[in-house]
Amino acid sequence: MNRSVKPTGNEDMQKVTFYPHNISISAEDGDNLLRVAMEAGVHVNASCGGEGICGKCRVIIEEGTVEGGITEKLSDDDIKKGYRQACLSNVRSDLVVRIPVESAIDASVLNMPLSPRKTARIKEFNFEELKEKGLFVPPVEKRYLELPEPTVQDNLPDVSRLVSYLKATFDEHRLLVELPVIRKVPDIFRKEGFRVTATLARPVHEGRKTHIINIQPGDTTDRNYAIAMDIGTTTVYGQMIDLITGNVLAQHGEFNGQISYGEDVISRIVYAEKPGGLDKLHDVVIKTMNGIIKKIVAQAKIDPDEISTITIAGNTTMTQLLLKVNPRYMRRSPYVPASTLYPPVKAVSLGIDLGDHVAALVYPQISSYVGGDIVAGVMGSGIYRSEELTLYMDIGTNAEIVIGNKDWLACAACSAGPAFEGGGVKFGMRATKGAIEDFSIDPVTFEPMNITIGNVRPKGICGSGLITMVATLFEAGVINNLGKFNRDLNTRRIRETDGVYEYVLAWANETQIDRDVVIAEPDIDNLIRAKGAIYSGCMTLLEEVGLTVQNLERIILAGGFGSFVDLEKSITIGLLPEIDLDKITFIGNGSLLGAKMSCLTNRIRSDVVEVTRKMTNFELSETASYMENYIAALFLPHTDMNNFPKVKERFEARKKMSNI
Amino acid sequence: MNRSVKPTGNEDMQKVTFYPHNISISAEDGDNLLRVAMEAGVHVNASCGGEGICGKCRVIIEEGTVEGGITEKLSDDDIKKGYRQACLSNVRSDLVVRIPVESAIDASVLNMPLSPRKTARIKEFNFEELKEKGLFVPPVEKRYLELPEPTVQDNLPDVSRLVSYLKATFDEHRLLVELPVIRKVPDIFRKEGFRVTATLARPVHEGRKTHIINIQPGDTTDRNYAIAMDIGTTTVYGQMIDLITGNVLAQHGEFNGQISYGEDVISRIVYAEKPGGLDKLHDVVIKTMNGIIKKIVAQAKIDPDEISTITIAGNTTMTQLLLKVNPRYMRRSPYVPASTLYPPVKAVSLGIDLGDHVAALVYPQISSYVGGDIVAGVMGSGIYRSEELTLYMDIGTNAEIVIGNKDWLACAACSAGPAFEGGGVKFGMRATKGAIEDFSIDPVTFEPMNITIGNVRPKGICGSGLITMVATLFEAGVINNLGKFNRDLNTRRIRETDGVYEYVLAWANETQIDRDVVIAEPDIDNLIRAKGAIYSGCMTLLEEVGLTVQNLERIILAGGFGSFVDLEKSITIGLLPEIDLDKITFIGNGSLLGAKMSCLTNRIRSDVVEVTRKMTNFELSETASYMENYIAALFLPHTDMNNFPKVKERFEARKKMSNI
Repeated sequence: MNRSVKPTGNEDMQKVTFYPHNISISAEDGDNLLRVAMEAGVHVNASCGGEGICGKCRVIIEEGTVEGGITEKLSDDDIKKGYRQACLSNVRSDLVVRIPVESAIDASVLNMPLSPRKTARIKEFNFEELKEKGLFVPPVEKRYLELPEPTVQDNLPDVSRLVSYLKATFDEHRLLVELPVIRKVPDIFRKEGFRVTATLARPVHEGRKTHIINIQPGDTTDRNYAIAMDIGTTTVYGQMIDLITGNVLAQHGEFNGQISYGEDVISRIVYAEKPGGLDKLHDVVIKTMNGIIKKIVAQAKIDPDEISTITIAGNTTMTQLLLKVNPRYMRRSPYVPASTLYPPVKAVSLGIDLGDHVAALVYPQISSYVGGDIVAGVMGSGIYRSEELTLYMDIGTNAEIVIGNKDWLACAACSAGPAFEGGGVKFGMRATKGAIEDFSIDPVTFEPMNITIGNVRPKGICGSGLITMVATLFEAGVINNLGKFNRDLNTRRIRETDGVYEYVLAWANETQIDRDVVIAEPDIDNLIRAKGAIYSGCMTLLEEVGLTVQNLERIILAGGFGSFVDLEKSITIGLLPEIDLDKITFIGNGSLLGAKMSCLTNRIRSDVVEVTRKMTNFELSETASYMENYIAALFLPHTDMNNFPKVKERFEARKKMSNI
Repeated sequence: MNRSVKPTGNEDMQKVTFYPHNISISAEDGDNLLRVAMEAGVHVNASCGGEGICGKCRVIIEEGTVEGGITEKLSDDDIKKGYRQACLSNVRSDLVVRIPVESAIDASVLNMPLSPRKTARIKEFNFEELKEKGLFVPPVEKRYLELPEPTVQDNLPDVSRLVSYLKATFDEHRLLVELPVIRKVPDIFRKEGFRVTATLARPVHEGRKTHIINIQPGDTTDRNYAIAMDIGTTTVYGQMIDLITGNVLAQHGEFNGQISYGEDVISRIVYAEKPGGLDKLHDVVIKTMNGIIKKIVAQAKIDPDEISTITIAGNTTMTQLLLKVNPRYMRRSPYVPASTLYPPVKAVSLGIDLGDHVAALVYPQISSYVGGDIVAGVMGSGIYRSEELTLYMDIGTNAEIVIGNKDWLACAACSAGPAFEGGGVKFGMRATKGAIEDFSIDPVTFEPMNITIGNVRPKGICGSGLITMVATLFEAGVINNLGKFNRDLNTRRIRETDGVYEYVLAWANETQIDRDVVIAEPDIDNLIRAKGAIYSGCMTLLEEVGLTVQNLERIILAGGFGSFVDLEKSITIGLLPEIDLDKITFIGNGSLLGAKMSCLTNRIRSDVVEVTRKMTNFELSETASYMENYIAALFLPHTDMNNFPKVKERFEARKKMSNI
């Protein structure tokens, strides 16, 4: 059996073959060998997360060379024999690597159907396609004019001259000139001999007015930029987009300054209700935005005056706080937000540090808990134009799901709780340095293989790590389908502390925190509740529209979470419905993607009104079948294994093998 | 001969008959007898303007009674005989009044064809007609809604609820809700149990969006107000208009605060070019406006929050200063203003003290010197909808003329100079207390009859007084058609001072200023140049469109000037073309009227774009025939008397009589 899980043969890639497994995988030059093994589905004991502390990840380099991997934990003799510590070794050539198998029993692992790490295929935004379809029509365009100078015979008012020549030269009609532009026109006209560039903001609907929003001396048509921004509850991302080429010139993210006033949307709403609270939250998010704008302007090395528009997407609370619309009624039944649509508003009027000609376009909202970030994702990912029945999931601080296609769309917000972001988990943490993000277990010895972000000693577990961990523990029979540890296993890693069963991922001396890092049953319970909320949300939406999982043709994952999560493992725990992995794609920050798309094609802005109208929001708490679906989903992967035929098959095969 | 110049027989009116003239006139109870005589065209010597100082205006009350009129200048015997001083007598009953004629020669005045004072017929704004024509459609309307409260089954966003019920209840479509309203909606909804009033701003063009600009708790549909404002170079007027009844609830005028920075538009433009000058001029006119708003709000006793819109008209310079658009290029050839049209702009953004929902609608401009005040006059007077060929004249600090009808419009600004406002005239003054506003002369003794504003001793001469004076002096043969005094007349009132000929209107002891008040030849020259500029402007416009004075069907006078000026006298000096006096109407402040009309009927706003496009501006200085017409107009009334057949006839009759 030789299973290549990544395409080999690429010139920049090295081929790494693991023995005795006889699994080959292609790796990039410099890749960490422990990660390559994990990627290949090859277990190597490793508690310390990859900092060379535990000394357990000994491998033998039989062919080829690695960089590093030599530590004091290896004797001279070991080194001569080719032993290296995998966690400190970087691939530098094609390799043949042998994992020392200490016992015959251990070798049984080789015959087990492993699930190699598989993250979602990243769906790249296809700009060329957009151009080909004639959809590259930015909401702002520039037009260069060489106007005749006025004479006593031809003393048209300046603005009339501008408008009439835009008509004559570019067939531009229905032009409206905004007052700040009128104020500039007379002087700008006379700066470079009546040679000027006009910036035109296109209407959402054909036949409506095109606004002339700026006027500049000379020809500046080669410089026209837009900002796309995603206001997340936790993080805010901005992109600088070149409206001539369609390229992203710079990107930067920062924590949302509102975090100091509450971690989640509810606590933000509570704060906004205090006297001065709304203003405060507004001010700090604007400060965050301005900081990001400053950064991306510097990165892109552009003149900020050449920025013509900004598109903003955020969830309903973030949007209302940004626009200073009190979100008071959103956290009380019947959960009513202020508005779906917001008109374009001058960026400066919000305090955003951009030219006074810049309008901020804000994505519309569906309901209090399905906001502009989700709408942006739906627009950016193109679901609303697709024939395929798609499930769109954005799992972050909150989880929102959308099901539908070009004909209909249904959506819901799931109260998943913060488990995916490390909340409610004893050693849970955000996906930052020191978080265990990947995990494997030796099915015989139950020794762990931890991989941490940054290859440092572990501090805790991030969301994607937790999913992988629970799935792996479940598949290895370490926990049962209720998430309870098998009390009969012979390993000191499973223990009872204060009446709570837990598995020790890393011993105190292998960690950064001088405490044993563990995963305990309450952590697993939390994860099961979180995944249960999301899965049952999907089931409820499908049921409400008379469909089942089998009808799904595509799953699109969005949110930072989606980029790291192991798909197979997510299906194993019953977070994602079981579907062919190739049908799952990841679009990254869907909100930011939608904001960017809206900068590149004005069509989005007319389409989005229709989409918003079309999207049916389900309040799950008010949907009768939801609670039933939820309770059924509080198992690994689900009370009804028939919806997870492959998981069932694998699970049963493994069970049979363990009983050999 | 018994010529009634005002209708008699009215119950509140008294009939006053003057002998030996045998002229009857009806007067209101309490009218000043000297003014009644002037009104009737009866000359009574009176130098001191009506304060009883000169003692010359002795009349005999033969029947009926007057109040007052008894002074120390009359002996007991005089009083017994019925002598009174006319300037201090008020009409209290029907009267028979005899003017003592001291000599036979004096009596010849009786047979002269006098021109009784005749001001233009005031054309009242006809609101009922507007209603009948279905044109009473204010740009803002209110709608009261009783909305169902949201439930978990019906948790539409608040704004969606508002919009959908406006659609369902009032068939309102294409609604756009502005951000400040969205901010208010959630709390306002919950103030009176989802009973709210929405204020809708209508689009200019059908099919465009209706903006929801305000939301109020409860039913406020009976309270909806607008402000109309005229920004003049000298004065600013505001009116508070009830949009339910169409009534003007209050009106107030103030001097434009910019006067301190220059009397006329040119000096304002010069000031605006200085550093900070534009901001300063903007600020002071806003201050003036805010003062007026405060006054009319108090007068009308309304809640300022119920004001929904403001319409503003002003000349091009005033408009640009108001909107902070530098007028720099307007005073330099080729005299280019910034724009014709200005989009509606939030009143608060200009600093106007009104609610943040109030848009300021600003009348469009035609050229640097034909501005929004004239366009407003054209709209308000309805010329643009009329079949009749109309000459519209607005004579103020500047003089603008428009000729046309519903099919075409031509306009021009005339550099009349400030003579009509008292400028360039030795004793010229604004039309305030102490200004001689009416004048007659004894054709034999050449003694004057001065009537002043406020019936006080004279300080100077206002514009309408100057016109009457020059016309009267001309008709009496005191000056010739070049405006030069007849050097041969035997009266000490005509004298040469420092080489300049002048006529003494009042001796120093009869004035408020202890100096002789005179009218001198340079004053007359100034008036002739001013009236020549205007008349030749009319001629040039008519010629350019291939018409003559004979084609004119109507003259509309606008501006403060038009209300006082004697029409016959204005024709006599050649300021107005000779036309049947009944065809001349006066509309008062045309700019304010247009602003008001725009508050009452939204049609104006769509029509005005068309009108502005249609109106052809002539730069007189660049129009070949203008100089020729101007030179021909520097005579009294004109070099070609054939255009003034009635003046010619009267003049020749008088001349013949004088030669008897």
